[in-house]
Amino acid sequence: MDRIRTAIVGASGYTGGELLRILLGHPSVEVTQATSERLAGKPVILAHPNLRGRTDLRFTSLSSLAPCDVLFLCLPHGTTARQFDTLAQQAPRIIDLSADFRLKDTVAYEKWYGGPHPAPGRLGEFVYGIPELHREEIRRARYVATAGCNATASILGLRPLYAAGLVQPGRTVVDVKVSSSEGGGVPSTASHHPERAGVIRSYKPTGHRHQAELRQELGLAADEPLHFSATAVDIVRGLLVTAHVFPSRPLQEIDLWKTYRAAYGTEPFIRLVKTKDGVHRYPEPKLLWGTNYCDIGFDIDRDTGRVVVLAAIDNLVKGSGGQAVQCMNLMHGVPETAGLEFTGLHPV
Amino acid sequence: MDRIRTAIVGASGYTGGELLRILLGHPSVEVTQATSERLAGKPVILAHPNLRGRTDLRFTSLSSLAPCDVLFLCLPHGTTARQFDTLAQQAPRIIDLSADFRLKDTVAYEKWYGGPHPAPGRLGEFVYGIPELHREEIRRARYVATAGCNATASILGLRPLYAAGLVQPGRTVVDVKVSSSEGGGVPSTASHHPERAGVIRSYKPTGHRHQAELRQELGLAADEPLHFSATAVDIVRGLLVTAHVFPSRPLQEIDLWKTYRAAYGTEPFIRLVKTKDGVHRYPEPKLLWGTNYCDIGFDIDRDTGRVVVLAAIDNLVKGSGGQAVQCMNLMHGVPETAGLEFTGLHPV
Amino acid sequence: MDRIRTAIVGASGYTGGELLRILLGHPSVEVTQATSERLAGKPVILAHPNLRGRTDLRFTSLSSLAPCDVLFLCLPHGTTARQFDTLAQQAPRIIDLSADFRLKDTVAYEKWYGGPHPAPGRLGEFVYGIPELHREEIRRARYVATAGCNATASILGLRPLYAAGLVQPGRTVVDVKVSSSEGGGVPSTASHHPERAGVIRSYKPTGHRHQAELRQELGLAADEPLHFSATAVDIVRGLLVTAHVFPSRPLQEIDLWKTYRAAYGTEPFIRLVKTKDGVHRYPEPKLLWGTNYCDIGFDIDRDTGRVVVLAAIDNLVKGSGGQAVQCMNLMHGVPETAGLEFTGLHPV
Amino acid sequence: MDRIRTAIVGASGYTGGELLRILLGHPSVEVTQATSERLAGKPVILAHPNLRGRTDLRFTSLSSLAPCDVLFLCLPHGTTARQFDTLAQQAPRIIDLSADFRLKDTVAYEKWYGGPHPAPGRLGEFVYGIPELHREEIRRARYVATAGCNATASILGLRPLYAAGLVQPGRTVVDVKVSSSEGGGVPSTASHHPERAGVIRSYKPTGHRHQAELRQELGLAADEPLHFSATAVDIVRGLLVTAHVFPSRPLQEIDLWKTYRAAYGTEPFIRLVKTKDGVHRYPEPKLLWGTNYCDIGFDIDRDTGRVVVLAAIDNLVKGSGGQAVQCMNLMHGVPETAGLEFTGLHPV
Repeated sequence: MDRIRTAIVGASGYTGGELLRILLGHPSVEVTQATSERLAGKPVILAHPNLRGRTDLRFTSLSSLAPCDVLFLCLPHGTTARQFDTLAQQAPRIIDLSADFRLKDTVAYEKWYGGPHPAPGRLGEFVYGIPELHREEIRRARYVATAGCNATASILGLRPLYAAGLVQPGRTVVDVKVSSSEGGGVPSTASHHPERAGVIRSYKPTGHRHQAELRQELGLAADEPLHFSATAVDIVRGLLVTAHVFPSRPLQEIDLWKTYRAAYGTEPFIRLVKTKDGVHRYPEPKLLWGTNYCDIGFDIDRDTGRVVVLAAIDNLVKGSGGQAVQCMNLMHGVPETAGLEFTGLHPV
Repeated sequence: MDRIRTAIVGASGYTGGELLRILLGHPSVEVTQATSERLAGKPVILAHPNLRGRTDLRFTSLSSLAPCDVLFLCLPHGTTARQFDTLAQQAPRIIDLSADFRLKDTVAYEKWYGGPHPAPGRLGEFVYGIPELHREEIRRARYVATAGCNATASILGLRPLYAAGLVQPGRTVVDVKVSSSEGGGVPSTASHHPERAGVIRSYKPTGHRHQAELRQELGLAADEPLHFSATAVDIVRGLLVTAHVFPSRPLQEIDLWKTYRAAYGTEPFIRLVKTKDGVHRYPEPKLLWGTNYCDIGFDIDRDTGRVVVLAAIDNLVKGSGGQAVQCMNLMHGVPETAGLEFTGLHPV
Repeated sequence: MDRIRTAIVGASGYTGGELLRILLGHPSVEVTQATSERLAGKPVILAHPNLRGRTDLRFTSLSSLAPCDVLFLCLPHGTTARQFDTLAQQAPRIIDLSADFRLKDTVAYEKWYGGPHPAPGRLGEFVYGIPELHREEIRRARYVATAGCNATASILGLRPLYAAGLVQPGRTVVDVKVSSSEGGGVPSTASHHPERAGVIRSYKPTGHRHQAELRQELGLAADEPLHFSATAVDIVRGLLVTAHVFPSRPLQEIDLWKTYRAAYGTEPFIRLVKTKDGVHRYPEPKLLWGTNYCDIGFDIDRDTGRVVVLAAIDNLVKGSGGQAVQCMNLMHGVPETAGLEFTGLHPV
Repeated sequence: MDRIRTAIVGASGYTGGELLRILLGHPSVEVTQATSERLAGKPVILAHPNLRGRTDLRFTSLSSLAPCDVLFLCLPHGTTARQFDTLAQQAPRIIDLSADFRLKDTVAYEKWYGGPHPAPGRLGEFVYGIPELHREEIRRARYVATAGCNATASILGLRPLYAAGLVQPGRTVVDVKVSSSEGGGVPSTASHHPERAGVIRSYKPTGHRHQAELRQELGLAADEPLHFSATAVDIVRGLLVTAHVFPSRPLQEIDLWKTYRAAYGTEPFIRLVKTKDGVHRYPEPKLLWGTNYCDIGFDIDRDTGRVVVLAAIDNLVKGSGGQAVQCMNLMHGVPETAGLEFTGLHPV
């Protein structure tokens, strides 16, 4: 089979770098171009030093972008939508890793992104890129908008309970613990090591944009409250969702096992993690660095019936570049796990 | 004035070490003894290397404990209560840092600590040791049981809202992020550095004992649910409480400012931290290492009215040894802040 | 081609786990057994949680070890040699990851390991397992003893200069910075997270055993001093060697480039890292987590002529399990990089 | 006694913040002004959030600087010397924390700082600010230039051996491990948390400016080589010097004990740390966070006679603000330890 010819637009950031890492190791893919205006002409290893010895690729300018089979877009939010018509001329299939085409509802977009959508007519052409929820649509899609990292883990953790009608509306509290790479590669005082190391920093106690994606994918009614907070801790990769769910009827552990197994029993990238003993009784983000897994666990409060759902991912893989490649695999009919086999390290 | 003669029983652990550090720097205190069965005869700096050059004290055996003015008990949970009658002969005032005498309700004790209370007749003699809530009782107390670390921050963060009747019963979710020193000084696989570094570990999604203290001090009805989870992150000291509170009536920021200022306006160890700009907009545990502060902040979700309360402490100071000394200061009529003036480091 | 049937003896530790991770992803290998006396009968994912979903293998007892093509030995130092005759009956090829057969000289063994060698007659049958130095011998070897982690990086960094006669004898100072996984998986007070996090701990200022391997592989005369120190820092994986070398004649950068390129120009796992600009001007261990690379860089002190050689590896991969698989690939005639293609993460 | 009226010029950085912390807690000091052009008019707690509740001070512009008793200068290297004549009109005593007046030799200054000294005539008026070496001069000094952080620990660790003539000239290798706060408060790609966390980064293998201070204070001949390298690790505060020293005659441990005790026996801020057992056998920087201690230890290589000297400090205290206050105490005749009593935390 011919290799899938792929190009990455906006390839100098963390998301672009992770895509490059995965695509360069993908058995069915060729990377034809990686664009960066700032680094055009420079080797990609300048921005992505882990790729030293793996590629001689150099960044090119967007203006020299040539046609390919799949275009991955890693541009800043807002930029993608404005350039989309032009970009769409270069490839029959496009996977956008920005937030521009994730929300189907222009009202929601405007609320969370602070202005009217730049290309509302395109919204219907995009599939929301979580394969575990939209696999068949993605297979047939021309355009996919991959999910936000916090959204991916939260949705994958909560969706089975919502879909089964097991959740009291309006009561779920999602408390996410996040890493520094989520903020991207641009330095700031907040990301300066002496300020950022060792923190437990409540950076978005309210108002995090990713909750709009949860609302959409969990099928919440417009007036149904959702409670979302994010706290930054001292790691570079990975995130843990702690979702406090109040069930609509009393649940036993066996109910949860059945629900999650029914939802994810054959999923290649979802692992249920819940053991009685040992150190690793629940999902642990550091075990997932570099992998495309979403590990999901749960616990039930015997006193109150509250269900605590735990979901962990690597924000740059299942939360970004890896999920994008998983979507590409589906769109091109190659094995869904191709290029995504890394199993994670322990200890690390 | 004569110095207060103090002794620490069970002084080789982290709590005992922190007490030693604070008491050795206290202008009105003399440390007469520090007991450890394991290290009897050895210099205390063997267990507490930060005290090198500050003290020649050696550990003594409990059997050689002599009378003093204040006895601090840092024994394992369950041990204290069984030995209390004997220990009480050595000092007119006792401050217990274990969990044995925190709960007034023997039923609650039995539920959370797995057996009948060893000395139920003593429970009424103890004051729960959070000065901001029980200052006058502590001044008059012979015996004080200092609060658990997670309980201290959670209670201080939530009490003003509960006391003002602003909280919908049964809905509050307390999501605590904790450090490794909370687990004490005994190594285990879970605390082994390769396993513990870099984690976001859901170690008590349900069932944490400290919630019993919250129930007592927030005045919850027996059938009123409280939702509590604890997650371990990669720091050695400090904790952050993220409490999701659902108000009984719509609240504005000004209401919260008024409530917290009314509750804590003159408190020497409580700081309200909520700024619009900058890196440190909310309480940050690392700024509190070594201090007796509890920093409290909050935010309101504009969409849902949810109030997010944030409270940070150093678990070994305001959550343990520092609060014990604060209680001692009150019991002995010395300035409440004596020995507790350290202001914290930045950056760190 | 038939798959290479491999078994791991002593597979519950960090080294065994890393071997398992690599072998399970190796295209030409089957893992037939993984032994652990402590965990016999339990799934390997209990000790190696990163392998969840990748294998159903369970630990077996050593007593049930069956014949295979290659046996990997991950037993404690001293144990291997005593059991070797028995173990050797199970496989024609054996790769020992302990220190037992690394040193050719029984006098050196006795000096550094505190007693007479348990099986001196076997020493001549083992090849020292650094492929970049002994590739052809390894291809023909029945038995290989893989190098120590600190030794691997130090030797790879220094050997080209020693081999070219560019080093003043007796003056080299090797200052290694190491991670916590080097100490293995057994908890202790020194490895307890509150004690181990955040340290810069001079754990072996003198007397580190690995220097005996350097002496052997760099060809030092018996009376030629070598100066070696190791300091532990707060990471879980990886190590950096800073070797201060005093050249026997003035060297320019171009001399070093030529020397290192001549030595390693076609090596698949050695990368020369020395750039003028950017953040990653020299080898950086964290970029190597999970990879089999040894990154080597250097600098010359303009004032004194001192050469500073920098060498970084992942101690559990190129310093242990990965190098063992590299040796196996050579012994079995499969591509040397098979199973070792992981390129490393950035950022991480 | 009247309080010493102090002002800090350039008070918004890490050094200025640490000075503020110490001076605000000093029993004999009043802080009259803290200047910052960028933050003039803003509360100092905006830059130094640990001081919340301790001071209402606001930054002022340098143009409004008023006379005081002691002026602390925390301006960037090069700036101080150019402004010194003007600044000197405001205070009879000045303590400069920049590098401008540390080197007595204008040739050395030009070599290491890249240009002619802006105020060479002033050099003779400054005392090099390490009290353990220059106590009496400092007592009488009008102007003091405090030592660099890496220089302070290196000099304190090495000076007794050099002063006693125990060191082979030209062979000492100083390998320093440093923290991120050494780089100051301005963000960059190198200090961006995802890039800086978890590193063992050889940032100055050669060419570190602080070695010029070592040369001066150890009394090296102009042609005597000194070998100095610095490596950055993942901590925010503190540094460890590992100095490899080759003695001019064979030394036993007892010789080293005698030498160091003779040099530092009564020093309030120097502790000799060398124990046979336990976790803390050598100096450990994290125990020193916030303290003015320099902990010094050593070991002797039995095979080669090499002496390994270990010296640890908090770079922002004994390496900067604390040492400056120690100098001020001497200059003003208050107890040398005033304001510097913090004993450090454990665990942390």
